[in-house]
Amino acid sequence: MNEILDLWYSESLAEDAKFSIRIKEHIYSEKTPFQQIDFFNTDTFGKFFTLDGLIMITEKDEFIYHEMITAVPMAVNPNIKNVLIIGGGDGGASREILRYPTVEKVDMVEIDERVVRLCQKYLPITACKIDNDERLKMHFEDGLQFVKNSKEGSYDLILVDSTDPIGPGEGLFTNEFYNNCRRILSDDGILINQHESPYYPSYCKEMKRAHSKIKSNFPIAMVYQFHMPTYASGHWLFGFASKKYHPINDAKFEKWNDFKIKTRYYNTDLHVGAFMLPSYVKEELDNS
Amino acid sequence: MNEILDLWYSESLAEDAKFSIRIKEHIYSEKTPFQQIDFFNTDTFGKFFTLDGLIMITEKDEFIYHEMITAVPMAVNPNIKNVLIIGGGDGGASREILRYPTVEKVDMVEIDERVVRLCQKYLPITACKIDNDERLKMHFEDGLQFVKNSKEGSYDLILVDSTDPIGPGEGLFTNEFYNNCRRILSDDGILINQHESPYYPSYCKEMKRAHSKIKSNFPIAMVYQFHMPTYASGHWLFGFASKKYHPINDAKFEKWNDFKIKTRYYNTDLHVGAFMLPSYVKEELDNS
Repeated sequence: MNEILDLWYSESLAEDAKFSIRIKEHIYSEKTPFQQIDFFNTDTFGKFFTLDGLIMITEKDEFIYHEMITAVPMAVNPNIKNVLIIGGGDGGASREILRYPTVEKVDMVEIDERVVRLCQKYLPITACKIDNDERLKMHFEDGLQFVKNSKEGSYDLILVDSTDPIGPGEGLFTNEFYNNCRRILSDDGILINQHESPYYPSYCKEMKRAHSKIKSNFPIAMVYQFHMPTYASGHWLFGFASKKYHPINDAKFEKWNDFKIKTRYYNTDLHVGAFMLPSYVKEELDNS
Repeated sequence: MNEILDLWYSESLAEDAKFSIRIKEHIYSEKTPFQQIDFFNTDTFGKFFTLDGLIMITEKDEFIYHEMITAVPMAVNPNIKNVLIIGGGDGGASREILRYPTVEKVDMVEIDERVVRLCQKYLPITACKIDNDERLKMHFEDGLQFVKNSKEGSYDLILVDSTDPIGPGEGLFTNEFYNNCRRILSDDGILINQHESPYYPSYCKEMKRAHSKIKSNFPIAMVYQFHMPTYASGHWLFGFASKKYHPINDAKFEKWNDFKIKTRYYNTDLHVGAFMLPSYVKEELDNS
């Protein structure tokens, strides 16, 4: 704890609600052509960083988000070989997916190289595989353009690990983007989408917007939830979309367990439980 | 929104983390022999009240907590007739349990009558059944003494809807209390316990303390989770303990659905999912 300076970071959850963390040190701040990036150090959460003032990940709970974005599709199709990550500049999604020996190639498309370089410096806990695993190829370009230019059926898995749909992430929540994702996925391809949150109105609106677009582009479009305490409301969602796999009925849990990958949040029982949504969330999604 | 006064209520989650709500009006404040009670009005959360500065319920999300504390045991044993509520002065648990026509008698034991009377005045959304349903009998006394003096096998269900184990709720997190709960439950009796939260260290400690005591007093002692955004971390737990019923294998979902009770959070799929805990939570509970 910084004993002299009583310095608090706050994130607005609604106009009249906020979550605040006491800061030991404001480690670094930079304004790139895309966004403002800030790194902080704290007691309870370790280091964390923000983009345009919103928490991206903290050292304390990044494992929850990154296990849930990767282990769920890997348990549904343990033969995934070619992966595309859109966003995910902190490197956590690439770190987790590269734990699977069956994964042969990961293309990571991050529009802002500075996010990646700064995470390598300040958050090696998530960025550890960048420049450090020959299966991982970095592309510092726009995700929307990248999927437009990719060939049909190139990927078995796309992880849309984007920021909220304001700022540089905005183009990713469009019909054009999801339509291209479907096109470049193989026949047994899976898309996992950062799907926002059902509780606070502004997040719920984005959840519905994303879901309605994914529903209209994929025959199977479901949603799973997890507890992410440093995100607004702590109730966070991923969208699961695919051309043919049902995320529970087609899951191959035995094969996933055979990977013997040690996880701290995910397990194959929780996989099933995560798709069992509260009634009010189901209603919002059905009406999206 | 109070346009003139920029007034914020904050709840500390850890020494260096807090959740804050902007207040339209501080409606009422009273110090009773047991605790300080405060009522507030807000835009996003409607009205809420605190005991000794900690949020008990808000109008926006009380339904989550109260459905989860009542619907889960009612789906496991839809023949529950005699219910004991310990705490629950806001009335939400009694409101929900009295929706079941099979429930014949509810004893509600709240140590602080002022909580009940003030909730009747300021939070009729939860307190609506108090003095308004002849099946409900109020007892303004100490819960620990009440269970000591109750006869063996008197209840089919005990809901421990207590505050955190500091202040007046402290005696409820003891071996003596849980031992008496077991004694006064019928052979097919169920105990549901406010079980705290796994994320922030001080809450996790209390979760483990409660669970270790319940485990040593009941042959079946499991835990289920839900998303409660206005509680610390948003990740909250109830303990499910019983003499013979397994909360999933013995559940009678068809019978629960036959009640045709409209819920906004609970559904019978979510019932199953709620028991599927993250690995780190399972480990903490196993080591408690």
